[in-house]
Amino acid sequence: MSRPAHRRPEYRKINKDLFVLTYGALVAQLCKDYEKDEDVNKYLDTMGYGIGTRLVEDFLARSCVRRCHSYSETADIIAQVAFKMYLGITPSVTCNNASRNEFSLILDKNPLVEFVEELPTGRSSLCYCNLLCGIIRGALEMVHLAADVTFLQDRLKGDSVTEIGITFLKKLDEKKYRRKK
Amino acid sequence: MSRPAHRRPEYRKINKDLFVLTYGALVAQLCKDYEKDEDVNKYLDTMGYGIGTRLVEDFLARSCVRRCHSYSETADIIAQVAFKMYLGITPSVTCNNASRNEFSLILDKNPLVEFVEELPTGRSSLCYCNLLCGIIRGALEMVHLAADVTFLQDRLKGDSVTEIGITFLKKLDEKKYRRKK
Repeated sequence: MSRPAHRRPEYRKINKDLFVLTYGALVAQLCKDYEKDEDVNKYLDTMGYGIGTRLVEDFLARSCVRRCHSYSETADIIAQVAFKMYLGITPSVTCNNASRNEFSLILDKNPLVEFVEELPTGRSSLCYCNLLCGIIRGALEMVHLAADVTFLQDRLKGDSVTEIGITFLKKLDEKKYRRKK
Repeated sequence: MSRPAHRRPEYRKINKDLFVLTYGALVAQLCKDYEKDEDVNKYLDTMGYGIGTRLVEDFLARSCVRRCHSYSETADIIAQVAFKMYLGITPSVTCNNASRNEFSLILDKNPLVEFVEELPTGRSSLCYCNLLCGIIRGALEMVHLAADVTFLQDRLKGDSVTEIGITFLKKLDEKKYRRKK
């Protein structure tokens, strides 16, 4: 899982605003296409899933992260390496249950909504950033980790923070991994 | 037109791949929505126009560029400052006519098509990156410069380079500007 970072990072960077505004145009288009918020959310998640499955290869190549030994480590990598690399932010991570397979990423700020003051009229159930959930889900699946990823809180809906919940669905077989090491 | 760059540039940068893949999802969605390539092209241009009208403010604030004295200077700023800032590339600029209002931006590489090997089947007239034309057109209009912006050549269509043509439609009143200075 660790490969050399063969591309110079400065060539991989672009200005955030172009992305944020293009994303806004995508959401607006889906709101035109689908009457129900649930359908827009689902479609954003599906789109994100496809993006995540492609993005993960680039992520592994450039980040040089190694196989994680626990869900907790995986959640930390998503927050501290992946979010930092792709969105320039580092959410804080909390573990939400005793069996340590449910985590929350708390986003103090969310660049994707930088130009969005509120949800469009009549779109109160829209998960504006649902693409992110799909991306995380898709990327995790490519490293053989099934997960449910959903927004638990959203500042655009009046919550005090934006919170993405990740529930890992299968236990990593740590013993198996240790034997192989 | 010159304002202080009040935001630290490193916070404005994100990884290109996320944008490129999201843009691909947007184009795919429009191809689902519109049967004719011309309609997809038109819609991408319209979306881009909206983005350009919003992006220009940020561009002026951060780039600190001053009022251009000629179309030639404007074309150079688009290529050397705006493209560099937003896409990380610097197209070369050529002037195409004696009255010096027609320019070409030649893109040796185009990050937006990094994951695209060819146009989708049956979409031979698709201007995949037409959002860029709309963005340039929208941004120019916000600084009171009317322009036609279209793809003249496209590597995705088998051309040897990708070329964006910009035709400025009204002459800058340089004398008037000089009096005001």
